[in-house]
Amino acid sequence: MTNVSIIGVGQTDVREHWDTSIRHLAWYAIEAALDDAHITKVDALYVGNMLAGQLSNQNHLGALVADFAGMRGIEAVTVEAADASGGAAMRQAVLAVKSGLVETALVVGVEKTTDETGSPVTAAQATGMDADYEVIHGLSYAGMGALLMRRYMFEHGVEVVDFAGFSVNAHANAGSNPLAMFRNRLRADRFASGPMVADPITLFDAAPLGDGAAAVIVTSSERALDMVPKPVEIAGSALATDHIALHDRKDVLWLQAVETSTKKAMDAAGVTHADIDLFELHDSFTVMAALSLEASGFAERGMGWQLARDGEIGRNGRIPISTFGGLKARGNPLGATGVYQVVEVARQLRGQAEDCQVADAKIGMAQSVGGSGATAVTHILRLPV
Amino acid sequence: MTNVSIIGVGQTDVREHWDTSIRHLAWYAIEAALDDAHITKVDALYVGNMLAGQLSNQNHLGALVADFAGMRGIEAVTVEAADASGGAAMRQAVLAVKSGLVETALVVGVEKTTDETGSPVTAAQATGMDADYEVIHGLSYAGMGALLMRRYMFEHGVEVVDFAGFSVNAHANAGSNPLAMFRNRLRADRFASGPMVADPITLFDAAPLGDGAAAVIVTSSERALDMVPKPVEIAGSALATDHIALHDRKDVLWLQAVETSTKKAMDAAGVTHADIDLFELHDSFTVMAALSLEASGFAERGMGWQLARDGEIGRNGRIPISTFGGLKARGNPLGATGVYQVVEVARQLRGQAEDCQVADAKIGMAQSVGGSGATAVTHILRLPV
Repeated sequence: MTNVSIIGVGQTDVREHWDTSIRHLAWYAIEAALDDAHITKVDALYVGNMLAGQLSNQNHLGALVADFAGMRGIEAVTVEAADASGGAAMRQAVLAVKSGLVETALVVGVEKTTDETGSPVTAAQATGMDADYEVIHGLSYAGMGALLMRRYMFEHGVEVVDFAGFSVNAHANAGSNPLAMFRNRLRADRFASGPMVADPITLFDAAPLGDGAAAVIVTSSERALDMVPKPVEIAGSALATDHIALHDRKDVLWLQAVETSTKKAMDAAGVTHADIDLFELHDSFTVMAALSLEASGFAERGMGWQLARDGEIGRNGRIPISTFGGLKARGNPLGATGVYQVVEVARQLRGQAEDCQVADAKIGMAQSVGGSGATAVTHILRLPV
Repeated sequence: MTNVSIIGVGQTDVREHWDTSIRHLAWYAIEAALDDAHITKVDALYVGNMLAGQLSNQNHLGALVADFAGMRGIEAVTVEAADASGGAAMRQAVLAVKSGLVETALVVGVEKTTDETGSPVTAAQATGMDADYEVIHGLSYAGMGALLMRRYMFEHGVEVVDFAGFSVNAHANAGSNPLAMFRNRLRADRFASGPMVADPITLFDAAPLGDGAAAVIVTSSERALDMVPKPVEIAGSALATDHIALHDRKDVLWLQAVETSTKKAMDAAGVTHADIDLFELHDSFTVMAALSLEASGFAERGMGWQLARDGEIGRNGRIPISTFGGLKARGNPLGATGVYQVVEVARQLRGQAEDCQVADAKIGMAQSVGGSGATAVTHILRLPV
């Protein structure tokens, strides 16, 4: 079976890009990825996007972006799985190259959410949960995070301040990433006293929505070796789902899709947890970071927060996470976020993470989560041995 | 390389399904397809949908539908390419099975557009065109069809009445399809005098939006032979794009994506035009049917309408189209339509088209078009020899 490798990555900064249209954002990331791969065109394009239809009156981004990027005619579609859209688009590119029908595939995650503010964006984002059984009762993403955090605190006997380490780490890392949205330092003793978003989640806990685009180019591993000096192999790729509504889950504190997709990706890659040098996870809220560490097997149930407390998620820790700032501080451009994660892991493995570099990173994992965990996509990347 | 075959198909009727949620609609089609294939679960789900985010406040349909269909945990995503979403989802399923990573894939196209009426739906549908350069100036889908028809009439010296044959044929065929939205006969002499939609397009020319769902299950051709008596092989599969905006095209009367995807699919299948026994094309407007016949090579440029005039598109004609009523009379549930087309071709080849049967159909083509032609997906199906 064909193995798949990354030959180019690109990204824009994450911020409020009010002066840049969605097609321009996508193009800036694509242009950087094409330059990185030293090519000018590809055979297929997979766009990860969640909300362009609702917030920019623009669907059909596959054809639109292919056209604007000067690749008129190529195969191009949009892939959507709520905020896991970027990871899902990445997965389709892997399948396409593995099929043998597509030689070189481009993935671009792109999202613009900040042209509008307040309730239209909150409502649009909430389309990633169950409209008929959750959102109709008023549930928002922040409300969902708050429910999970309250339950976590109750079941595991921890306080709000015990989650601080996740945000402190994210902001510390973002300080070294010039493309991050929030590069300010966050002090642990300020964490719990941030402006309230949805009790107990404060502004210092919730990842900020931002505009941005990231792009990845993949081809067969055999071709990749002739094309770039350091192709990064996609050793494992898996997408899993779960009940979409929280109330349908047997255990709301267990992200089953995260567990399943992690296991499948690790099995495919033939690696164990000890082999993973860094993990770009879905820290949309600190509780989601804790739950992701637990379901993916880096911590026991109820113990994820301890990795943050003990500094194990830092650049020199046991399992570095959010190495460029994560969703919390690099910023969360929803459907683009999953592609940012892959770009970041690839940069780490190529030794091009600059001030964010994790020393001697050989194998890294990127995990994109949608909704309250109904979709999880996991990719394991490594340098060829 | 793995060949891919269809082992199950299912569909709902197309109409105003006000009493049925989007998840129920999807399930009814899935249930029928599972029954048809004599299986209860699959490995991956590809949902074709265009507007659930805008019209039902529901994105994340992959996880939602997998969950509701009792397949919690499986790989599941939404694929979007405007009204070609159904064809695009079909294409992803083919790639997934060919990749060897997915054994059995389910495609469901589902759309609900009639819970709202008038301008919200018109505006939502228009997201399939260029928001910044076309729709902002007021272009709607019907307006786009009208521009194309006017230009066609001017360049090729034909009148409105010369397009009548397409709608007459569609309604005649829909009369034999109990699942069709409009089963009434349409007389050629009434065609041009229908209520005006966008001059020169009348109600008798424009395909009606409807709610509906259709499902297809695919697996490797080798497995398929052990599972069902008449697996239908997907001999060719191709997706191509074009400039999204009409004004960017060198020739607005040439659907380049249709030409490209047809050629690629026919080359892959190793068939010529003479081999194709029926062709489910994108007759959203009669001019789109004419342009599709021309760009796909069944008629010379400017001659597509003559096939309708001469009865060549009828059940016993040279190239039967819209054999169950097409978009015009079966109804057009946007993101589901491309899957309906594949279901219909499969039923024809299996000899299960009942009163819509094309005699001795061995090879059929389904073609899903998005926007004004910016995406075209072509699948060629055949019975194993």
